[in-house]
Amino acid sequence: MLKVLSLRSALQRAASTRQLVYEGYRNPPEAIQLKTVTIADKPSADQVLVQWIAAPINPADLNQIQGVYPVKPALPAVGGNEGFGKVISVGSNVSSIKVGDHVIPDRSGLGTWRELGLHQENDLFPIDNTLSMEYAATFQVNPPTAYRMLKDFIDLKKGDTVAQNGANSAVGKHVIQICRILGIKTVNVVRSRDNLEELVKELKDLGADEVITQEELYSRKKKFPGVKLALNCVGGRSSLFLASLLDHGGCMVTYGGMSKQPVDCPTGPLIFKDISLRGFWMSRWYDIQKSPEKRHEMYQELAGWMKSGEIKKQEIVKNRLEDHAKALDTALSKFDKKQFFVLE
Amino acid sequence: MLKVLSLRSALQRAASTRQLVYEGYRNPPEAIQLKTVTIADKPSADQVLVQWIAAPINPADLNQIQGVYPVKPALPAVGGNEGFGKVISVGSNVSSIKVGDHVIPDRSGLGTWRELGLHQENDLFPIDNTLSMEYAATFQVNPPTAYRMLKDFIDLKKGDTVAQNGANSAVGKHVIQICRILGIKTVNVVRSRDNLEELVKELKDLGADEVITQEELYSRKKKFPGVKLALNCVGGRSSLFLASLLDHGGCMVTYGGMSKQPVDCPTGPLIFKDISLRGFWMSRWYDIQKSPEKRHEMYQELAGWMKSGEIKKQEIVKNRLEDHAKALDTALSKFDKKQFFVLE
Repeated sequence: MLKVLSLRSALQRAASTRQLVYEGYRNPPEAIQLKTVTIADKPSADQVLVQWIAAPINPADLNQIQGVYPVKPALPAVGGNEGFGKVISVGSNVSSIKVGDHVIPDRSGLGTWRELGLHQENDLFPIDNTLSMEYAATFQVNPPTAYRMLKDFIDLKKGDTVAQNGANSAVGKHVIQICRILGIKTVNVVRSRDNLEELVKELKDLGADEVITQEELYSRKKKFPGVKLALNCVGGRSSLFLASLLDHGGCMVTYGGMSKQPVDCPTGPLIFKDISLRGFWMSRWYDIQKSPEKRHEMYQELAGWMKSGEIKKQEIVKNRLEDHAKALDTALSKFDKKQFFVLE
Repeated sequence: MLKVLSLRSALQRAASTRQLVYEGYRNPPEAIQLKTVTIADKPSADQVLVQWIAAPINPADLNQIQGVYPVKPALPAVGGNEGFGKVISVGSNVSSIKVGDHVIPDRSGLGTWRELGLHQENDLFPIDNTLSMEYAATFQVNPPTAYRMLKDFIDLKKGDTVAQNGANSAVGKHVIQICRILGIKTVNVVRSRDNLEELVKELKDLGADEVITQEELYSRKKKFPGVKLALNCVGGRSSLFLASLLDHGGCMVTYGGMSKQPVDCPTGPLIFKDISLRGFWMSRWYDIQKSPEKRHEMYQELAGWMKSGEIKKQEIVKNRLEDHAKALDTALSKFDKKQFFVLE
């Protein structure tokens, strides 16, 4: 939707583009407005012009608009922290990105819910441009979160076990698949529900070794030996019992708090079994990762698994920008399929 | 009380000694019995004969007799994990210990509530033999616990702040004093009580910068900048608010759980401020410390601070072995002064 305003001179050429913006922190469906703005259609020396193709609605985006996320862009801001686009043109100084590349934001806060964007070179990161939309638009947050939590805390060996709650979250499903690929067993805790059998089958099809409900976790009837790493996105009682599964020297990594309860850990294991509790935030990893090599290396491995089908495509729902209120409402209440804005 | 049974031949010489033993896990005042036993009064090649001088009654000793401590000596067992004695004689192969040395147990589980003991050389560790009883008998657990927690988790610099709950515990008082010596500030949380002013004065006299009640901690009215390390021996709500004092990258170390509640930590700081939760157990440090140099180095520094008076002598109550029931009862209910068995 690149509409060049042809009445202007070549030096003043401009493009009109639509974007979803918020001016204050509120309930996302009310806060977000669709606005058409005019931008230069030619990047300056250090800039890159990107045509955004697809962007998901993530919980972090919603929290950001609600004002409860630690990344707070200057207001008014364009919504969306994740997504991918195609490079239309690059400035004369740009060296890491070329026309035709697929790019994702370098870090949170860029604003991806827009058709066109003029960005600084170092605000973007190129990815494999053969990845399909479902993978590329969510390539920055969930797969790397699972990947880094499995790589950076405990030196996991084949046959070791990882336990996790919220196992049917997007990160949880990536954990299951990456563990299956690496030969690591998983114990997966989910909330009981009507269609439990269906969910158990879905997770087992992804490679889950064990799927248990929170209640089964609390009953402590089943024993799981060799749990070296626990991944917690729930907190409260769920984290208490998850931590108690850990072997001597194990680590529980918290990356979410769905229960809105503090993280709980039994005192005895913390002291006597030398277990540790850490937190993980993908945004921080991107912030502190000075050299791009490690990021390229991770992206290459993940993209390989996606292209070979070893990591399955997730189910998505495509929305147009003008349907933002409905899309945001749905993202706030339904979690089975990821809501996408599709922009091209 | 070395009573050589002179009727026996020189080769079969034996000594009778009294010791406090337990044969099953029960309430300590009922489980512990005073028994007189006969031991060889001459060590074999790898043995050391120790005349025990004084031994405290620690919470870990009580928990051990109750059967709820992870160190479980073979039953029947002699009570007491800590204390000091004087070496009476050594076997022909013994090289690290000589007659006249003051020794402490190498690790938990030795049984110190006895007059005389024949021990393996590597079950004992020599300490400065000029330390007075109050320091020497409790040299193995509390001062090193405070010392290691301040040295091994965060690289503390002068002017940094350490926050702790249970600040009037034996470890807590050592933390205050070692921090004062090292130029580190302390925020000390205590439970409200009748004689609060007296306690605040006592801790401030030891070097505490701030003393606040749990309620003042929960009210969050006072802000304490630069808290790098939090030391938790309470758990539950106290640990939740203690952890929330931590700066970015800070660490909360748990070494006790007086509230019998799990350790709580707010989810946000764990994820977004990269704080970590660890546990510390002095017994494990002794177990994994293969080279004695680091232990000698720590003991030398601590002994120096004790002999110069920079670490104050604690108040103790002396008990005879025959008064064990009363001493154990008091140790279970009153915590202001340490109960000692004095054996010589």
